[in-house]
Amino acid sequence: MEKICGACRVLIRNQLASSYVRAVIRSQHSGPSTFSLRTHSCGELRNSHVGKEVTLCGWIQHRRYDFMLTLRDSFGTTQVVLKEQIGKDVDNIRNLSAESVVMVTGKVQLRPDGLANKKMSTGDIEVVADQFEILNNSKESLPFEIHDFSKVKESTRMLYRYLDLRSTRMQHNMRQRSDVAMKMRHFLWKLHGFVEVETPTLFRRTPGGAREYLVPTRQPGKFYTLPQSPQQFKQLLMVGAIDRYFQIARCYRDEGSRSDRQPEFTQVDIEMSFINKEGIQALIEELLQYAWPDNLPSIHLPFPRMTYAQAMDQFGTDKPDTRFDMKLQDVTRELKDSGVAVFSSTEGNDAFVIKVFKCSKGMNYLKRKDYEDLQKEAVKLKDGGVTFIQIKDTDSWKSSISKHLRSEARENLGKAMKVNPGDVLCLAAGKPDSVNSLLGQMRLACANRLEANGASVRDHGSFHFLWVEDFPLFLPKEDGQDGELESSHHPFTAPVDEHKELIMTQPSQVHGQHYDLVLDGSEIAGGSIRIHDAKLQKHVLQNILNEDASSMQHLLEALESGCPPHGGIAIGFDRLIAILAGEPSIREVIAFPKTIDGNDLMSGAPSLLYNDELAVYHIRHDIRDATK
Amino acid sequence: MEKICGACRVLIRNQLASSYVRAVIRSQHSGPSTFSLRTHSCGELRNSHVGKEVTLCGWIQHRRYDFMLTLRDSFGTTQVVLKEQIGKDVDNIRNLSAESVVMVTGKVQLRPDGLANKKMSTGDIEVVADQFEILNNSKESLPFEIHDFSKVKESTRMLYRYLDLRSTRMQHNMRQRSDVAMKMRHFLWKLHGFVEVETPTLFRRTPGGAREYLVPTRQPGKFYTLPQSPQQFKQLLMVGAIDRYFQIARCYRDEGSRSDRQPEFTQVDIEMSFINKEGIQALIEELLQYAWPDNLPSIHLPFPRMTYAQAMDQFGTDKPDTRFDMKLQDVTRELKDSGVAVFSSTEGNDAFVIKVFKCSKGMNYLKRKDYEDLQKEAVKLKDGGVTFIQIKDTDSWKSSISKHLRSEARENLGKAMKVNPGDVLCLAAGKPDSVNSLLGQMRLACANRLEANGASVRDHGSFHFLWVEDFPLFLPKEDGQDGELESSHHPFTAPVDEHKELIMTQPSQVHGQHYDLVLDGSEIAGGSIRIHDAKLQKHVLQNILNEDASSMQHLLEALESGCPPHGGIAIGFDRLIAILAGEPSIREVIAFPKTIDGNDLMSGAPSLLYNDELAVYHIRHDIRDATK
Repeated sequence: MEKICGACRVLIRNQLASSYVRAVIRSQHSGPSTFSLRTHSCGELRNSHVGKEVTLCGWIQHRRYDFMLTLRDSFGTTQVVLKEQIGKDVDNIRNLSAESVVMVTGKVQLRPDGLANKKMSTGDIEVVADQFEILNNSKESLPFEIHDFSKVKESTRMLYRYLDLRSTRMQHNMRQRSDVAMKMRHFLWKLHGFVEVETPTLFRRTPGGAREYLVPTRQPGKFYTLPQSPQQFKQLLMVGAIDRYFQIARCYRDEGSRSDRQPEFTQVDIEMSFINKEGIQALIEELLQYAWPDNLPSIHLPFPRMTYAQAMDQFGTDKPDTRFDMKLQDVTRELKDSGVAVFSSTEGNDAFVIKVFKCSKGMNYLKRKDYEDLQKEAVKLKDGGVTFIQIKDTDSWKSSISKHLRSEARENLGKAMKVNPGDVLCLAAGKPDSVNSLLGQMRLACANRLEANGASVRDHGSFHFLWVEDFPLFLPKEDGQDGELESSHHPFTAPVDEHKELIMTQPSQVHGQHYDLVLDGSEIAGGSIRIHDAKLQKHVLQNILNEDASSMQHLLEALESGCPPHGGIAIGFDRLIAILAGEPSIREVIAFPKTIDGNDLMSGAPSLLYNDELAVYHIRHDIRDATK
Repeated sequence: MEKICGACRVLIRNQLASSYVRAVIRSQHSGPSTFSLRTHSCGELRNSHVGKEVTLCGWIQHRRYDFMLTLRDSFGTTQVVLKEQIGKDVDNIRNLSAESVVMVTGKVQLRPDGLANKKMSTGDIEVVADQFEILNNSKESLPFEIHDFSKVKESTRMLYRYLDLRSTRMQHNMRQRSDVAMKMRHFLWKLHGFVEVETPTLFRRTPGGAREYLVPTRQPGKFYTLPQSPQQFKQLLMVGAIDRYFQIARCYRDEGSRSDRQPEFTQVDIEMSFINKEGIQALIEELLQYAWPDNLPSIHLPFPRMTYAQAMDQFGTDKPDTRFDMKLQDVTRELKDSGVAVFSSTEGNDAFVIKVFKCSKGMNYLKRKDYEDLQKEAVKLKDGGVTFIQIKDTDSWKSSISKHLRSEARENLGKAMKVNPGDVLCLAAGKPDSVNSLLGQMRLACANRLEANGASVRDHGSFHFLWVEDFPLFLPKEDGQDGELESSHHPFTAPVDEHKELIMTQPSQVHGQHYDLVLDGSEIAGGSIRIHDAKLQKHVLQNILNEDASSMQHLLEALESGCPPHGGIAIGFDRLIAILAGEPSIREVIAFPKTIDGNDLMSGAPSLLYNDELAVYHIRHDIRDATK
């Protein structure tokens, strides 16, 4: 008995000769049918199984006549033909709704000549069943049919998520997510000596933690918070000599309603001691290559790199979509004497630029309505919006500015942008930051519009990774007073080595050892080398950020207790999986997501509570109709 | 460049010839030093490395003279001898505190004749360093020394958990925990086709959810709750055809202060469709065997089984510690005419038993004070406590009852219990439930006392698993009225097949398809086959438990939408790991545990919040000194 398999032991132990036991006898010793009532899934039977007796369990997808069923499970569908003696039970079978759950046992046989279905992976065979058991009836009319779910609106899918999950699409998404996570863990743990550590999710309010959910406790006035990331804990693990940490960690962020964010989300959280930026980047590249799904085009290492300054200059964003070109170009010099009023600076030269991007052959796809819509969008983003120029011919440019544009300026611009007939230019002028931001967004909007109209813009056949690095360590504080700074990422990021002096005197000029990983225009990971020097960390918190460092005392003490140099990264797992699955929203790769208002339509979370239920936590609310 | 290793790519990319890069060049291509500044850990150098140039990073454990260091990291310690030219930097080295972090590069050499340290795994060699870099100083006096931490009181260890984690004990516990989790995942995912699904932790209040933490939301009066387990979601996944689900899930329970519980804890959560009890049990047995740490005695399958009735009868508990015998025996018949007043029933026969267990050779270990203490404990548990009998000789029994005990009764009892001189009997009489419970607890107390006094009672050399099954499905409701029932586990557990009729008429007599796994007297897993029939589930919720089923509407609807038969189990992961590590408390296997009052001493969680910070959640507290 020592080392026999579980399926056999089930048999030995099970003293009742039930159909369960008979099924278990025939079950396989590894794979998706071990320990189970079925011997095979509905997706695996082939010619080679002909003659075998099998037991299948699954949902009734279709029923034809009184004796033919298409049985479905997570792995596929199989055609089942019921033998005559079962046929006698015809009333039960006739009354069986679609989506009822049944178990059949019988022999695999080839389908009769000419009836094989080449579109179906099990289409060569059928199971001729001599045993048939209804495991559970389904009610007659379900809110939607499983194979038809793409026509169903999202809120209905969410309300009946347990049905929605049966669809091929959701089955694929859930299983791919699990596979990628497991391969990542294996790479980190087995191949590279990482330790998985579960860090607390009941934590304390951190400085600036306005988006942290609260959890009242039985201690009057005291609250836990649900952390936005395990940042502090993973750094403390480095101090604690867990020198390679990872966790696929649940994180929380209360942002009210924002499109495609979830109150709880998942990140692949990584931290290492004795590491530099290049080491972390190489690790992540290999991790992604290792965990990459086999059904997708393979990815190539190393990933390209770009500085923050370059990204803003060429793409107008710190997460450039590099699946297509249409880069921003500075044409201030070319247009300095253009004759066009909006291209004339009213300010000092440094604070004024004219930039442009080109939609090659754009005229073939963009119509008048498109320009109008795009212009409306642009005006919302910045006063004055953008200027479109349609290059009808070398000498014939159609634009709102064409009658003012001097021919020399036109020639300069045409040369700089290497224009050809049919191209469309999109220009904007003003302060560099706002021009970059405007054109960065218009670049994406134009690409979307061109693709919607049938143009081929993005390279959708492969995945485009990009490291963006060399970020400023601090940015002017939003709504802050002049000179006030805030961390561009978080207060634990180390300055680049060359700026270790500068941070004492001119922090706004300092660059940080931060790096973001961008995939197809979405930020999918961000990390940094951290500050391991207690004095520097205190300087950043107190002198630069003006934070009350008292709630960080444990971290500061830890840094002066033998803290190794360390750094890390966190991968936004939901977003990564959504991109791999080709899904527009992370809701499609989360088993039970919430709406953008934070509601779980299926279970009705969150729910109304009465004040007497809150009393143990020393809190009350003033909602009248919720008070008993 | 396509498929070279990460360490090499770091080198290629890193254009500055820093010490970092030199270290990376030498780093290995797999194992715990990839992508890192070190080439080896401090635990791996052996004779075979002699002559190699290596870079080590670590903490200074000891410093002898100005040139010898013992360098420590998570993997071990290595002796380092600094070369003369570094010795010049003697001031820095002299001032270096223990626990400072350094990096050294040099050649591995054999220690001089006679100086090898056989107790140290790296004791044959030393590293002669020609490069030495202080990565971070540690402050002079830390709260405790790492190798001495066993003398430190727990609250100090918790306050400085980042130091505590450096100890050999905590390193072992954290790494073993990670290893077991990863092997479990591999077994489930890779070998048996399970899908890992992350279920929400922001859920809604469930019936009877008094121990659920609340999370206020921006919707007035509405709260999420943190679930005690993913029970509902995993059942809904079965309805959704994710037919084999697992998750190493974070769960939450607000129990106020209870010894050795944590507000958040981890369970290995498993659910399968098309399965029976035996299948789940076989799966779990093989899972544990697969994930079992190599350094522990191996475990043998199958695990023994016992009914709930048998466990209560023989061990007085539903989680018997089967590492030792001392079973309870019924001696009502033997003592019915004993002449001893406390052994005479004042009630009907059914409701009165006399039971006993035997401590073989107990007289060699138990002293007068022990009997007194044990008796005090017993009296606290039940009026009248227990009766001890010391078998001095066949005819000479020492006991408070010996002068009343008739010789025939004594002979009967001696025969039934096969007493030998030196044995101790422990008896109690009364209602069966209270006698079982009392003697069950006294059995453990006596075993502890015997062991404390030097007796060998438990088999500490191996692990004793036990399945307890065939539980009653319902129990009389605590503080309930006559006839009111509550679920003995949870309302989703299916009755045994034989009781499918009985549940309609006499629910209190019904047994459930529930099973608990006990290890060395601790419950480490519990699960059941679930109800998949909507009508039966509604009957249980409404007619038997008198619950408001409206908050369960989604589950009831799911059951009638084609729900497969299914069942599952959850392993208490913290407890399992604590037993494997031989730790008395789960706090020793959790990286950042909370005290029994729910406080994180290191970070100060939970923390006081002011009412203006709560306003966005429409709640307020009435704690005066917390109000701004």
